[in-house]
Amino acid sequence: MLKGLLSVLLVLVTLSSVMGKPDATTPKKEKRIPQTLSRGWGDQLIWAQTYEEALFWSRSKNKPLMVIFHLEDCPHSQALKKAFAEDKVIQTLADEEFVILNLVYETTDKHLSPDGQYVPRILFVDPSMTVRADITGRYSNRLYAYEPADMKLLLSNMQRALKFLKTEL
Amino acid sequence: MLKGLLSVLLVLVTLSSVMGKPDATTPKKEKRIPQTLSRGWGDQLIWAQTYEEALFWSRSKNKPLMVIFHLEDCPHSQALKKAFAEDKVIQTLADEEFVILNLVYETTDKHLSPDGQYVPRILFVDPSMTVRADITGRYSNRLYAYEPADMKLLLSNMQRALKFLKTEL
Repeated sequence: MLKGLLSVLLVLVTLSSVMGKPDATTPKKEKRIPQTLSRGWGDQLIWAQTYEEALFWSRSKNKPLMVIFHLEDCPHSQALKKAFAEDKVIQTLADEEFVILNLVYETTDKHLSPDGQYVPRILFVDPSMTVRADITGRYSNRLYAYEPADMKLLLSNMQRALKFLKTEL
Repeated sequence: MLKGLLSVLLVLVTLSSVMGKPDATTPKKEKRIPQTLSRGWGDQLIWAQTYEEALFWSRSKNKPLMVIFHLEDCPHSQALKKAFAEDKVIQTLADEEFVILNLVYETTDKHLSPDGQYVPRILFVDPSMTVRADITGRYSNRLYAYEPADMKLLLSNMQRALKFLKTEL
């Protein structure tokens, strides 16, 4: 009984992210849809829960870490999330070659906010635990911000994070 | 190879929380079930993702924080999870009066491991961000460990965390 219910709930989660419907407004006493670690950034990807966990996986798998800072109710974050989740090349590369983490709260590590704590922003971290502050987007006032139109730049930055890794190690 | 391993692990994690038994035969390329923040500790509860987020909610809602450290492949954690998830009184109290967080990786805050980093262990934190090291289980060698038979003690400790809060503030 509970098992069946859980399966249905999990299907609902998948459906709601596929259809882009938020579930934050679900009234308290109705059945809630379990929160996902992906938060809509790619339900088929395997997400780290915390920065500590992500660093652990990055070191042990020798894969660069991509950290996405966002907010659920920020329209820029939502637009970037949609572009990110729908970009199959980026999703596949993230799945195969990166450790990934999306956060709606800042960490205590100041290296993850080289030019401030804004959203959305994306930072890469080497398996050596070095934040790659040199991998930036196209906006000089917010170096780590990306917009939906920047998916090609983001892809090339992901490839840069990988190349650097291969050259250095 | 590693990716395959991780996929299998994820499927195992998800399946084991849904069905309570692992299944190593699930093929790699099938649809993955999105990871949940609850990890089986109560799908109907609202979980914080990180310690930073949990502290923020604890302060802003003026509710004590309950942090559960566990491991997916630890039988003691699994047994405690089952008892915790099935205890309706605890689930309701956690939902209504606590900020809750379950972690499979340690944080950098040493206050959360007053007598070591073992699992499962449960710590309470006041909205003032004070770790309630005085709220302990029944085992003198592992002060913050609980077993499935300890649900009544856990409930009374939750009530203690709430009472303390009301008395002090």
